Amino acid sequence: MVSTEQTKDPVAEQIRSVLDGRWADARQRLRADETFPAAVPGRELGLEEHRAATLEAVRALAGTDLANGALPLAQGGTGDLGASVTGLEMLGHGDLSVLIKAGVQFGLFGGAIANLGTQPHHEQYLRPMADLTLPGCFAMTETGHGSDVQSILTTATHDPETDELVVHSPSPAARKDYIGGAARDGRLAAVFAQLVVAGENHGVHCVLVPIRDDAGQAMPGVTISDCGPKMGLRGVDNGRLMFDHVRVPRANLLNKYGDIDDDGHYSSPIESVNRRFFTMLGTLVRGRVTVGAGAGAAARSALTLAVRYGLARTQFSYPDGEHEVVILDYLGHQRKLLPRLARSYGLALAQNALVEKMAAIDAGEVTSEDAQRELEARAAGIKAITTEHATDTIQACREACGGAGYMTANRFTDLKADTDVFTTFEGDNTVLLQLTGKGMLTNHAADFNELDTRGAILFGARQVTTSVIERTIGGSLIQRLISGAPGRDGDDALNDRGGQLAFFEDRESHLLETLATRLRTADEADSFATFNGAQDHLLEAARARIDRVTLEAFVTAIDEAPQGPGRDLLEKVCDLFVLSTVETNRAWFLEHGRLSSRQSKGVVSRVNELCAELRPEARTLVDAFGIPDAWLTTEMMADLATF
Amino acid sequence: MVSTEQTKDPVAEQIRSVLDGRWADARQRLRADETFPAAVPGRELGLEEHRAATLEAVRALAGTDLANGALPLAQGGTGDLGASVTGLEMLGHGDLSVLIKAGVQFGLFGGAIANLGTQPHHEQYLRPMADLTLPGCFAMTETGHGSDVQSILTTATHDPETDELVVHSPSPAARKDYIGGAARDGRLAAVFAQLVVAGENHGVHCVLVPIRDDAGQAMPGVTISDCGPKMGLRGVDNGRLMFDHVRVPRANLLNKYGDIDDDGHYSSPIESVNRRFFTMLGTLVRGRVTVGAGAGAAARSALTLAVRYGLARTQFSYPDGEHEVVILDYLGHQRKLLPRLARSYGLALAQNALVEKMAAIDAGEVTSEDAQRELEARAAGIKAITTEHATDTIQACREACGGAGYMTANRFTDLKADTDVFTTFEGDNTVLLQLTGKGMLTNHAADFNELDTRGAILFGARQVTTSVIERTIGGSLIQRLISGAPGRDGDDALNDRGGQLAFFEDRESHLLETLATRLRTADEADSFATFNGAQDHLLEAARARIDRVTLEAFVTAIDEAPQGPGRDLLEKVCDLFVLSTVETNRAWFLEHGRLSSRQSKGVVSRVNELCAELRPEARTLVDAFGIPDAWLTTEMMADLATF
Repeated sequence: MVSTEQTKDPVAEQIRSVLDGRWADARQRLRADETFPAAVPGRELGLEEHRAATLEAVRALAGTDLANGALPLAQGGTGDLGASVTGLEMLGHGDLSVLIKAGVQFGLFGGAIANLGTQPHHEQYLRPMADLTLPGCFAMTETGHGSDVQSILTTATHDPETDELVVHSPSPAARKDYIGGAARDGRLAAVFAQLVVAGENHGVHCVLVPIRDDAGQAMPGVTISDCGPKMGLRGVDNGRLMFDHVRVPRANLLNKYGDIDDDGHYSSPIESVNRRFFTMLGTLVRGRVTVGAGAGAAARSALTLAVRYGLARTQFSYPDGEHEVVILDYLGHQRKLLPRLARSYGLALAQNALVEKMAAIDAGEVTSEDAQRELEARAAGIKAITTEHATDTIQACREACGGAGYMTANRFTDLKADTDVFTTFEGDNTVLLQLTGKGMLTNHAADFNELDTRGAILFGARQVTTSVIERTIGGSLIQRLISGAPGRDGDDALNDRGGQLAFFEDRESHLLETLATRLRTADEADSFATFNGAQDHLLEAARARIDRVTLEAFVTAIDEAPQGPGRDLLEKVCDLFVLSTVETNRAWFLEHGRLSSRQSKGVVSRVNELCAELRPEARTLVDAFGIPDAWLTTEMMADLATF
Repeated sequence: MVSTEQTKDPVAEQIRSVLDGRWADARQRLRADETFPAAVPGRELGLEEHRAATLEAVRALAGTDLANGALPLAQGGTGDLGASVTGLEMLGHGDLSVLIKAGVQFGLFGGAIANLGTQPHHEQYLRPMADLTLPGCFAMTETGHGSDVQSILTTATHDPETDELVVHSPSPAARKDYIGGAARDGRLAAVFAQLVVAGENHGVHCVLVPIRDDAGQAMPGVTISDCGPKMGLRGVDNGRLMFDHVRVPRANLLNKYGDIDDDGHYSSPIESVNRRFFTMLGTLVRGRVTVGAGAGAAARSALTLAVRYGLARTQFSYPDGEHEVVILDYLGHQRKLLPRLARSYGLALAQNALVEKMAAIDAGEVTSEDAQRELEARAAGIKAITTEHATDTIQACREACGGAGYMTANRFTDLKADTDVFTTFEGDNTVLLQLTGKGMLTNHAADFNELDTRGAILFGARQVTTSVIERTIGGSLIQRLISGAPGRDGDDALNDRGGQLAFFEDRESHLLETLATRLRTADEADSFATFNGAQDHLLEAARARIDRVTLEAFVTAIDEAPQGPGRDLLEKVCDLFVLSTVETNRAWFLEHGRLSSRQSKGVVSRVNELCAELRPEARTLVDAFGIPDAWLTTEMMADLATF
């Protein structure tokens, strides 16, 4: 156990252990580690200095759980992917450039080799990947195609004469863009390209292409440029790559899902091009899981700063004229911070459940293909909702700290600028929510990977008549709570955990069923118009799913917590999560007869009450995030301490 | 007339002339002026270079309408305050550091001297203020008190022995903080301090204090420090000031509302300390008007970039597999951009109406004290809503441009970082909306300035039983439209301009009346709890007021526009503003029986339809903002042009 200021509050400690989840020990070790990058105070660095410092910080992680967890046992690692992702999440409390640079190396570059490559690739590349002697890139996005990976233009053409692959960028739109590590450090790139064998295009595959020699010079035929200044993540050297008929050995094809034999024939264990594509993409889920994790951590840092500031900062006097009001005593200020705090709790617990599932699949404890599809759809949704939440929450926290929040020394500058692109990279949030929606309509059946997203959604809609809620966690507990709920009437339902769960499930089911009906009965002749007209409906259904999944994770974590004041407080935070979520969506509940006008107004009042009830516990609730004081240093708290 | 690419579309030109409003000629001159700061492409500058360039850019404005409009005729200016603020707004399309630096000099520093000083101050200081030979500061905010100006700690104590004022910072919390111009350029500061004469505190007054000598060295007793790196506005040299018994002549007191005579006696034309305070603060309204104007301009720049990108960028194919979809064809993308575009139109027109009113009061065309109070309350609300809108819109536009939006070359980095503090400075938005709410409850009667905000709100609540909608603009037109409306039923109302107006007025009235009832009947003994418990209700009432005022400005501007396709298109944009505003607030309309479930769902569908109808006009609508192409250069559009 670490001794930090936070550990003095036993209730915060109880809650921390719930939030820490399965990898609590790994978290505690990192909190105590003074060399962990999040413990190193930020400095004002020039661009090149910042990039160099970021590489060094990632290099220093070699040999830790964080790097070794991304390395299978066979290569000398721990194979504990959960500990690795948890460590990456903890990096999210510090300089986010380090998190992203590490995520690119261990999660994306390492993940591509591990999941798309085979034994020889693992043996040759994974150790140097994990110990940073081989800094890598993940070259998927092109200037012309980001979300639509299937349409990328880079080609990898097999040349039977030399038995090589010729990697080529046929047009400016084919330029690999925003590639982390490309501008400065990367040596080997995992390049996604259309694989052409004997004149036939077999779709997107991944090929390892050396981009720099040992002296750091670009390899022949590779044109490297720097993306230049970005909004944030200055420590990450994003760059652009153009390939002019660059030749690599056939063995550089990551060949798990598609191979070329000695006779120059292509073969794949997956016949359908579409299904193969989605299978390959799906194995890269850890990047999305990591981004969601880091965004959640950044939001919790922001909330900790803003709540502590709000408890110390005063403004305007009480009517007695003698005492000034602590700003967190204002209802408006509570409403800015506390519902977001409650949602951060829910999302942290949903994230934990997601990481556990990913680790179980990675370790081979769960093997069904449907489970993999469900993981991908859930990871997509949680990434989208958590990154959106982080953008919104960090902004609200900046504003809650007023002018002080605008000063770089007080952290919000970097928190905002660094996390801003989280809603975009590793999948644009709108596209990711559609992926979640696709999973709902197809019930994650692997068959649907034969079709593209739009096709799968339209096809899936024909299968759904009454939806089945797919519980991802705590199934029997949830069922018991729902069965014991007093009724579905708004008053009763929202005062009872089972009723709340039923309320969330009902919304999700209804959105899904009506969406399916709408897509089924629409104009067959114009599938673009049909799909596009229902896009907002699909996105709302996906949001409802993630809200429900988040509540299930929250309820399950509370159920597993020991009795005590920490658990009691968690119950109240969960209530605020539920009530504020219903409040945000109460127009829907009113429109669909789930809440009367009176009940809906009652929801608003209840959120106000819960804010007042949680106000005295605010410090405990942010201390329970377990962010060591040393990681949170700012000028503004020191200023407040002087008066 | 200027020849720019935009002028090629006659419909855009028709709409532009409506949006340009009364100072259209001033706008057109600035658009054609290649030396205008917004026309100068941004450069990557070091901090000190950026500060120096910003000062030079503001200095170069000397002699223009922008500077001379802030200067009365008596001092050789044009006295055309509207042209000055319009010019500042146009600066909002460029480097916002220039806007803020100019706003501090002409709006705040110049405004304090003009409005709080008397003839001798005008003669001595206004010309050097306007020609930048006297760079000034506006030193109001302190580290310990920002929103609560009345409680600032700095003192200005009259010393009858020497007939001087002794300006002093008694504690660290009294430090003047975030003061634009303090760190580098300022020579003379307008310092707000508690004025103590013969041992009696007469409340906050403004005193001119030299802070640097001609060589740029801090004056004796003045400790200057630099706020250091900020999120944005890097060209503005924000700093901190501490005063150690700094002596200035008695004549340095800006003495319009409070003076000390030769015998050392204090006198004021306003007896009540509270009323005097609010009167003095109220004259500084032009700072808030300028911030709202600049935020609106920045949001329009962002929308122009994002809409043009959305019309050029493709992603995913149509079902034919041959053509890729322009991303603005996606409903989700339309919903991101078009309702915000419509709201930007409304707010730009509301801003125009506000500037006209301010200019009329400044020119002495309108003289009633109630009109001044109404202006202050409206300016506070429009500043709050427009800056909140800018933060939200620029964020949405960045996300709508994906990874390209994250690259500094594509402008969003600065647009976001620079405007972020607009929601905080010149009045925190929550505090400003309360000021709007106070005006609603007191009907802007000047009497209420005797009381502080909370007191005035509680007292005002006792007077309101049935609210009277105070029309700020287009009164007879609005009345005629409302009288001709087919009914208040949701179906009819929302398809008719008069019905829409009645719908908005009804919401405002109901919120105000129920707020008054709630405050009246609450616990007298605990006025803090009463006020605080109703804070969210008060803020919602203020929002409803600004929505209604915005709609009135929109309707009036359309009414004044010549018949033609431009006007027809404006009608549709106005519909989208109305319907999307109702959609956002539809829970309220449902809860209060103003919309049935069916009607509410119809509002959502209608927003989708309007998005589809306006999609083909999107380019025209952003061209009508009249931002010259040369001011909008980015890399991302050049990239798209290559494929």
